[in-house]
Amino acid sequence: MATQQILLAGRWQTATATGTFQVENPASGEQLPDVFPISAWSDCDAALAAAVEAQTVLRRTPPERIAGFLNRFAERLEARSAEIVDLAHQETGYPKSPRLADVELPRTTGQLRQAATAALEGSWAMPTIDTKLGIRSCYAALGPICVFGPNNFPLAFNSVSGGDFAAAIAAGNPVIAKANSSHPGTTRLLAEEAHAAVQETELHPATVQLLYRTSHADGEDLVADTRVGATAYTGSRAAGLALKQAADAAGKPIYLELSSINPVVVLPGALAERADKIADEFTASCLMGTGQFCTNPGLVVLLAGADAESFLAEIARRFAAAAPGVLLSKGVARSLAENVQQITRAGAKVIVGGKSMDGPGYRYQNTLLRVEGKRFLAKPEELQTEAFGNASLAVVARDADEAAAVLDRMEGNLTGGIYSDSTGADDALYSQLEPHLRPRVGRLLNDKMPTGVAVSPAMNHGGPYPATGHPGFTAVGIPASLRRFAMLECFDGVRPARLPPLLQNKNPTGRTWRLIDGAWTQADVA
Amino acid sequence: MATQQILLAGRWQTATATGTFQVENPASGEQLPDVFPISAWSDCDAALAAAVEAQTVLRRTPPERIAGFLNRFAERLEARSAEIVDLAHQETGYPKSPRLADVELPRTTGQLRQAATAALEGSWAMPTIDTKLGIRSCYAALGPICVFGPNNFPLAFNSVSGGDFAAAIAAGNPVIAKANSSHPGTTRLLAEEAHAAVQETELHPATVQLLYRTSHADGEDLVADTRVGATAYTGSRAAGLALKQAADAAGKPIYLELSSINPVVVLPGALAERADKIADEFTASCLMGTGQFCTNPGLVVLLAGADAESFLAEIARRFAAAAPGVLLSKGVARSLAENVQQITRAGAKVIVGGKSMDGPGYRYQNTLLRVEGKRFLAKPEELQTEAFGNASLAVVARDADEAAAVLDRMEGNLTGGIYSDSTGADDALYSQLEPHLRPRVGRLLNDKMPTGVAVSPAMNHGGPYPATGHPGFTAVGIPASLRRFAMLECFDGVRPARLPPLLQNKNPTGRTWRLIDGAWTQADVA
Repeated sequence: MATQQILLAGRWQTATATGTFQVENPASGEQLPDVFPISAWSDCDAALAAAVEAQTVLRRTPPERIAGFLNRFAERLEARSAEIVDLAHQETGYPKSPRLADVELPRTTGQLRQAATAALEGSWAMPTIDTKLGIRSCYAALGPICVFGPNNFPLAFNSVSGGDFAAAIAAGNPVIAKANSSHPGTTRLLAEEAHAAVQETELHPATVQLLYRTSHADGEDLVADTRVGATAYTGSRAAGLALKQAADAAGKPIYLELSSINPVVVLPGALAERADKIADEFTASCLMGTGQFCTNPGLVVLLAGADAESFLAEIARRFAAAAPGVLLSKGVARSLAENVQQITRAGAKVIVGGKSMDGPGYRYQNTLLRVEGKRFLAKPEELQTEAFGNASLAVVARDADEAAAVLDRMEGNLTGGIYSDSTGADDALYSQLEPHLRPRVGRLLNDKMPTGVAVSPAMNHGGPYPATGHPGFTAVGIPASLRRFAMLECFDGVRPARLPPLLQNKNPTGRTWRLIDGAWTQADVA
Repeated sequence: MATQQILLAGRWQTATATGTFQVENPASGEQLPDVFPISAWSDCDAALAAAVEAQTVLRRTPPERIAGFLNRFAERLEARSAEIVDLAHQETGYPKSPRLADVELPRTTGQLRQAATAALEGSWAMPTIDTKLGIRSCYAALGPICVFGPNNFPLAFNSVSGGDFAAAIAAGNPVIAKANSSHPGTTRLLAEEAHAAVQETELHPATVQLLYRTSHADGEDLVADTRVGATAYTGSRAAGLALKQAADAAGKPIYLELSSINPVVVLPGALAERADKIADEFTASCLMGTGQFCTNPGLVVLLAGADAESFLAEIARRFAAAAPGVLLSKGVARSLAENVQQITRAGAKVIVGGKSMDGPGYRYQNTLLRVEGKRFLAKPEELQTEAFGNASLAVVARDADEAAAVLDRMEGNLTGGIYSDSTGADDALYSQLEPHLRPRVGRLLNDKMPTGVAVSPAMNHGGPYPATGHPGFTAVGIPASLRRFAMLECFDGVRPARLPPLLQNKNPTGRTWRLIDGAWTQADVA
């Protein structure tokens, strides 16, 4: 079979390949037929050169055209959904329904449409006008954005269709997408639709480009290249930190979503009140998508006692009863086994699960581990190893002070949650523990599990390092996610006709929110 | 004379010193009497421990109290202004009036008061509420902020009274200030007033701490410490990049203001129309503060022709006629001489000046250099060497295309300006050149010089690397500058009474701007 072509400078072209790769269907272990190229640096270089040209044109492209592309792309994805879902199912092992067809694809098209709306409205750019001093500023496109998508959302976080892609494009930037190596075929289908939508809506043809894979060294050179505006990366911590080091050294912004174990504290009153319900929620959240979510609750903190013991027994029963799902790849299965071993070596005990399963395909037993708070505090780093997949660790703290100490040792996480009872019995404990958790997580939840990341303007899918690279940015939630891919442009004494439309006296849309002399308004400058 | 004490953990204490230092009056070259300690790591460690305690308390401190501190601090500075201005004059050589007493001190107290207003109002935190999904988020204090102030603004950018300090405190963080080594005495006076204001307003006593100096290695360990929230650094590129490397490796945000030559393009029509006026403005902007401004116009781009030649001759005449001001230190004087040499070695010619002046004190001739566009393009990096002080380089481009190529080679700068004629004769050239300049500068000016950085919400005192470390942030301009020292905190399903005041249904001030269900409003949640 011929090697697939890359999308370079506005057309599908044969890559300058240093090698090729294929992927397996993780549910069966069978190799899929398509062959994909590993690009040499010359492909990266050509993509960068084309992206710079695209950027020059995009600077002058009205937001209506960019929004038109995003909407048309969403329509095209819907029109080809059956084929996309089928291939994504083969490449990831995720169920076609509801996961891929009914949840992830609608989320993907919804994000594209929200991004289109944001591009049209312009409020994301936070136009700020000081009429007295004649100074005006707003966020504006930054330049070519490299997007590295993760393995666990083949559509909604795909580098050529997902949240980072939508945000980068809506902010007016061209995208150089690097496919995740575990679902290159799905990515090709998505990129075909993106490219067709680019052509239909007559954006610059290099607005969207796709490489399947590069060497690690070329990836590092790519994110550090002077022609790049910024990079968005979602994936493993090791690979992400290597890219971060390269980008940082070159002074290039890089937004990372690396790893997170999402601690959940279940307080005694909540257990006394509704242990079964919480056990159901925890189990569903842990095992959904075979635990392969960024916000999977990988750590639960309990206060020692009989209720905690029976709660853990209830979870163990549920974990044992549920059929383990397929993992995304051989590599994910191997890492999960290794990480569970690392956690047990550090002193945790397996309550249930803890073993790889026989093939075909890649599965691991639903796994619950347990460690006492004192032991956790002795090896907090090892015991925070992310076991990406269907495994979670319970930390049983002797008392509230020990629970607080456990939370104090938490690395930065995307989320953290506290379950408390509904009558106020847990309120004092909540007040004691919340300050230890709040600064260490991007999103704090009450009485719900962290999986499920709504695309809301109020969402924060971010958090302190090492969950991400900067605690002030979110990867989900429009309009904030767009500002990652923008620079602050100020105009001081610039003549009116030379201002960008967002900063002219007349509100260009009639509904763009602008901060004029300290007040947010949709009105024109008086 | 006894060595000065550091401000540590809420009291003036004897430093654990590895050495001491003194400074000279740069106008006379005479050593000033005060002796300052170089702190060992144990001082940094103690400051960090105390700052963490302060942070815990500040989290619960209402904004009114923080604003009260900032306002009281401003009042105290005014009450002691004569002494502060006198010592700043001795340490920097800047004139007492107008520079220190009438410009910089009022700017300093003005910034503190604007920050107080911002803290009170709360809009800086961008509270964002999604009532349907029950998700609410805002920016919130990040943790102890290390502030490294520059040599060139002993008051308004001082690490213990300047813009970064005011922003960090207003956002709710404690500050560990590292004095600039060229004006430690001034910094001591400012810190005394800050400390007294902390005591009067009963903030946590470690809210403001001061170290005079550390080893480079300890400075790097400081910004990378797990207890730090973020760092703000303004100063030389070499020292800033060393800190950046350390902070980046630890995943700690660091905001840098490093260097900038602030290109100014003067188009032919503007020269034909008002060359004398522009020469006056350019000269004033170049020589103000002996050229020691971050936004000093260090590079002017002209199109070749008789008008350009006579413009340069006019500037040379003005430069020669003006008495050279005092430079901030022996080190600044030495660097200026070295950097002018580097620029000449790369092919520029000295039109006027170019020599160090005899003492007492540190002065350098007002210096104008010149290079042809073609030669600039051959050595663009060397010819963009920042000659911090009263020296500027004119680049004479053969034509507009060459001028565009010159602009394309510009590194990231804080500002860039274009002068054009008032009748439209330069409009085509403006349209051609502006896209080459705009993406490379934070603030674009028309028909004015870049010195003078108004404290406006619309200001951007920032720009692409290496002018700063991230093009999305500004160091001047409230409220945006506060958000550098904040993390995005999201509350998902959190019970109403547990929400921070900014996110509760009732608008806590009645005037905080909040984004509720997509609309900015000062109203309560309906």
